Amino acid sequence: MTNKLTGIAASDGIAIAPVYLLVDPDLSFEEKIIEDCEQELVRLSIAVDQAKAELEKIRQLASTQLGEAEAQVFDAHLLVLSDPEFLAQIKNLIEDEKMNAEASLQKVADMFIATFEAMEDNPYMQERAADIRDVKQRLMAALLGVELPTPATIDHEVIVVARDLTPSDTAQLNKKYVKAFVTEIGGRTSHSAIMARSLEIPAIVGIKGVSEAVTQGQKIIVDAIEGSVILQPTESELKEYQDKSALLRQNKEELKKLVSASSLTSDGKSLEIAANIGTPQDVEGVIANGADGIGLYRTEFLYMNSSDFPSEDDQYQAYRQVLEAVDGKGVVVRTMDIGGDKHLPYMTLPQELNPFLGYRAIRISLDKQEMFKTQLRALLRASVHGDLKIMFPMIATLSEFHQAKAILEEAKEELAQAQIAYSDKIEVGIMVEIPAAAVLADQFAKEVDFFSIGTNDLIQYSMAADRMNEQVSYLYQPYNPSILRLVKFVIDSAHQEGKWVGMCGEMAGDQMAVPILVGMGLDEFSMSASSILRTRQLVSRLDSQMMKELAERVTKECSSSEEVLDLVKNYLAQ
Amino acid sequence: MTNKLTGIAASDGIAIAPVYLLVDPDLSFEEKIIEDCEQELVRLSIAVDQAKAELEKIRQLASTQLGEAEAQVFDAHLLVLSDPEFLAQIKNLIEDEKMNAEASLQKVADMFIATFEAMEDNPYMQERAADIRDVKQRLMAALLGVELPTPATIDHEVIVVARDLTPSDTAQLNKKYVKAFVTEIGGRTSHSAIMARSLEIPAIVGIKGVSEAVTQGQKIIVDAIEGSVILQPTESELKEYQDKSALLRQNKEELKKLVSASSLTSDGKSLEIAANIGTPQDVEGVIANGADGIGLYRTEFLYMNSSDFPSEDDQYQAYRQVLEAVDGKGVVVRTMDIGGDKHLPYMTLPQELNPFLGYRAIRISLDKQEMFKTQLRALLRASVHGDLKIMFPMIATLSEFHQAKAILEEAKEELAQAQIAYSDKIEVGIMVEIPAAAVLADQFAKEVDFFSIGTNDLIQYSMAADRMNEQVSYLYQPYNPSILRLVKFVIDSAHQEGKWVGMCGEMAGDQMAVPILVGMGLDEFSMSASSILRTRQLVSRLDSQMMKELAERVTKECSSSEEVLDLVKNYLAQ
Repeated sequence: MTNKLTGIAASDGIAIAPVYLLVDPDLSFEEKIIEDCEQELVRLSIAVDQAKAELEKIRQLASTQLGEAEAQVFDAHLLVLSDPEFLAQIKNLIEDEKMNAEASLQKVADMFIATFEAMEDNPYMQERAADIRDVKQRLMAALLGVELPTPATIDHEVIVVARDLTPSDTAQLNKKYVKAFVTEIGGRTSHSAIMARSLEIPAIVGIKGVSEAVTQGQKIIVDAIEGSVILQPTESELKEYQDKSALLRQNKEELKKLVSASSLTSDGKSLEIAANIGTPQDVEGVIANGADGIGLYRTEFLYMNSSDFPSEDDQYQAYRQVLEAVDGKGVVVRTMDIGGDKHLPYMTLPQELNPFLGYRAIRISLDKQEMFKTQLRALLRASVHGDLKIMFPMIATLSEFHQAKAILEEAKEELAQAQIAYSDKIEVGIMVEIPAAAVLADQFAKEVDFFSIGTNDLIQYSMAADRMNEQVSYLYQPYNPSILRLVKFVIDSAHQEGKWVGMCGEMAGDQMAVPILVGMGLDEFSMSASSILRTRQLVSRLDSQMMKELAERVTKECSSSEEVLDLVKNYLAQ
Repeated sequence: MTNKLTGIAASDGIAIAPVYLLVDPDLSFEEKIIEDCEQELVRLSIAVDQAKAELEKIRQLASTQLGEAEAQVFDAHLLVLSDPEFLAQIKNLIEDEKMNAEASLQKVADMFIATFEAMEDNPYMQERAADIRDVKQRLMAALLGVELPTPATIDHEVIVVARDLTPSDTAQLNKKYVKAFVTEIGGRTSHSAIMARSLEIPAIVGIKGVSEAVTQGQKIIVDAIEGSVILQPTESELKEYQDKSALLRQNKEELKKLVSASSLTSDGKSLEIAANIGTPQDVEGVIANGADGIGLYRTEFLYMNSSDFPSEDDQYQAYRQVLEAVDGKGVVVRTMDIGGDKHLPYMTLPQELNPFLGYRAIRISLDKQEMFKTQLRALLRASVHGDLKIMFPMIATLSEFHQAKAILEEAKEELAQAQIAYSDKIEVGIMVEIPAAAVLADQFAKEVDFFSIGTNDLIQYSMAADRMNEQVSYLYQPYNPSILRLVKFVIDSAHQEGKWVGMCGEMAGDQMAVPILVGMGLDEFSMSASSILRTRQLVSRLDSQMMKELAERVTKECSSSEEVLDLVKNYLAQ
């Protein structure tokens, strides 16, 4: 069947709509000597105004769609358009060299880009180069009268098909009209996949050649449950998927009834199904989906969406807002996880050959202790407004945990001296995402209050395979028995010491992994808010004793992911 | 004590000698318009001849010091000096632009370098850029009459002090005169440290600021056992270290008596102490040090020191040479481990964000099956000349092992069809260097003939810390209980199935790790040839039963490297 393409289902759902092809437009032009400078300057001025108007519209849309923080990238673009130096140099070329506006823009923009990009050790300047590249494209399109594909201007139902979606593309997607998206590259944990789940838009990623296989406006079916795209649907296929889609909607309605239900297995064992969040704005979705708490609050976005280190007070406000919004439910806040693929514009990190094996997360916090203590003080101050738990990321050795706790104690003493209140019931735990920590979990369990297993990194390091690297993506194997053994050892070790264990990687919401994890006795499952109800429903159908047998068997008997999956399927079919 | 600097002892020994400071020379010059073109062309020609003569001398030295393969880098430099295009362009600038030779050289060389460097995805061209940079420096020095620090020309005893040693610097070190070296950067597993051990030159790495703390010709003491440099030794310190050095020499004489001894513990348990090699030339050192076999033959050097993929016949000759030279002793050949930080000039690898977590070793071999099969056929053909064992690197899953074995079976069939002989006693094993493989060792043990634990990578992945990255080098912890637990599990799992286990990482020759490994029952210890006798001596003093108790205790009781080291010291003191 050549009318069917398959990829990786990254965010589930079914959609039937015409294609909106998000491809790079043709912005080629001729370099010319002009005669009428005045007219050329007017052309430039009109193009600048048009670009500004477009950007303001996009910024506005992004702010309502995705929140203020995400919208700020467009402020940077607007700033470029208002930069007198940038525009003056273009005008100079028009006036002095009689160069046409397109050529002048290209020359000046490319010079700025080259200059900024040359500052290789300065990520802030690297981002400025990206901003100028975006603005150059928009201005050029305005000059040439070419319409730039602007997802923000979509005003009817579509399925977006693109090579890849950049964060600024994603920021423009209007949930009302974008029924699904399909990209050529990316995996289940790529940026666009994660955004799709957070926006609850069906998405399939990793279909090579899809943008060439479709035409603008062509009606297609996206089955983001199976991970397939049907290019020329027949009438009967359309009917079939309309029915499937209706069934899905019905199931969604069913799920909604579970919003205020407890998370219980079929034999009545209680567990916690919590949500992962990145900003206080995300709490809305958490509540709407009836999460039992927040299992992972990624604080690095506070740092990434800021032009300087966020102050103690700014952080305090954010943490307090989250703690109060969930109304007494537990909130696990992970201290800053910068480094790896996450950079701060205002903080120079070393150039590293292997950033995922480098200076990141707690390794930075223990090195930049003032920055770390500012975060800890903000957390301590916020702790009086709810049930706060503090979690340190990327802990490899007990010594790192001891150091982090010592700094926390210092922060407490400072507050005590200043007579500022903080809760004395804060639990302190660690992410288990480095194999060494998993292997030594029994020793860690004596000292921490809880563990949260970060499977994305744990898998990546255990398999020695960068999950972002397509060449080795076949090694990203959540069901590999080695991973399941590590997870089981962590859970068993914690329970031995009377501590609880959560999981906050992709795996915690994975429908094939959940039965095993229930069997292992995992206490808390933390996931995208959009996966919570589905997981609660699944859990309610599982017998914890039977799953315990399953968990024992997969860790003892299986030698490959395939064997594990077969066994899970067997047990689910019983 | 400000006259003592400390760093990491990378290759042990003691040396007392004047400093040879290996620093970048001042090659600044004035750009001038010349009048006498002829004279300038003569200056250039003399400089070219001088540079050629120097390079030929260095090449000759490198070949005798380090072997033909290492010397070939200088052939590339000589080629640049004979490149008519390169010289013609310099001459043109002198003749046409009346530019002086220095400025002409700079302009042309920089243009070539920029052009080659711009080809970012072509590592071959990148290396050419490095060659031209080297040649430019040498030619410039000749023009300016500046003496380039040329370690190859050292003709009296010295201690080389440098920021870092490049492979071509190291290639020039004459063991006769270079008594030790000290560098500012690097760790125990950096390139220069490994080279130092292979050359058996005492070395200390990682002493920041050392090149500024010493002056040319100043007499210093290098204590590469403790890892310290004494800058202004007093008479009594000189006496003390002369005595220590004499004692060391005496101990070396003692060690020499062990060349033909068996490797036995004090209670008579036999084990194998083998050597790691990179080229057939290394076998000489293996025999001189009385190794029980070769535990790791790194075949990637065959590929790296070649201008194209080595042919089946070239490989066959190399493998046969090694097998015959060791006279029936076992030789474990590891199939190609390219990727990560090792590139081939003639093979384009993808640009990766984290190459250590990327496309390398068996992952490439399984993808480029023809290349892999060529190597396997060469190995099979060589197998009739000795006791060959084949080992696959970077195995993460059983499926990879099955695939690799299937290709080996295909190669066997091809040879059988062509009536070419191969041994039917070849053992086939895997490197255990990925945490997932270690955790699943019991499943692997059912299928492999042996394991060899690659601790350098196993530690790096288990701790999620790039061992080449100074920012996180504190996490490279061979004695971390998590690492020791993985090692023990691998050994226990293999023994359960009646298979043997070797270790070919740095740890196998580490004096504090060996007692634990003996206690765990490790069967084969493979290391730099220079560590063999010392390790054989150490093993002969260990009681295997007592060490067994030690091994049990470190893996059960200890929670940190420090606790492990304390316990080892306790046991060694008994």
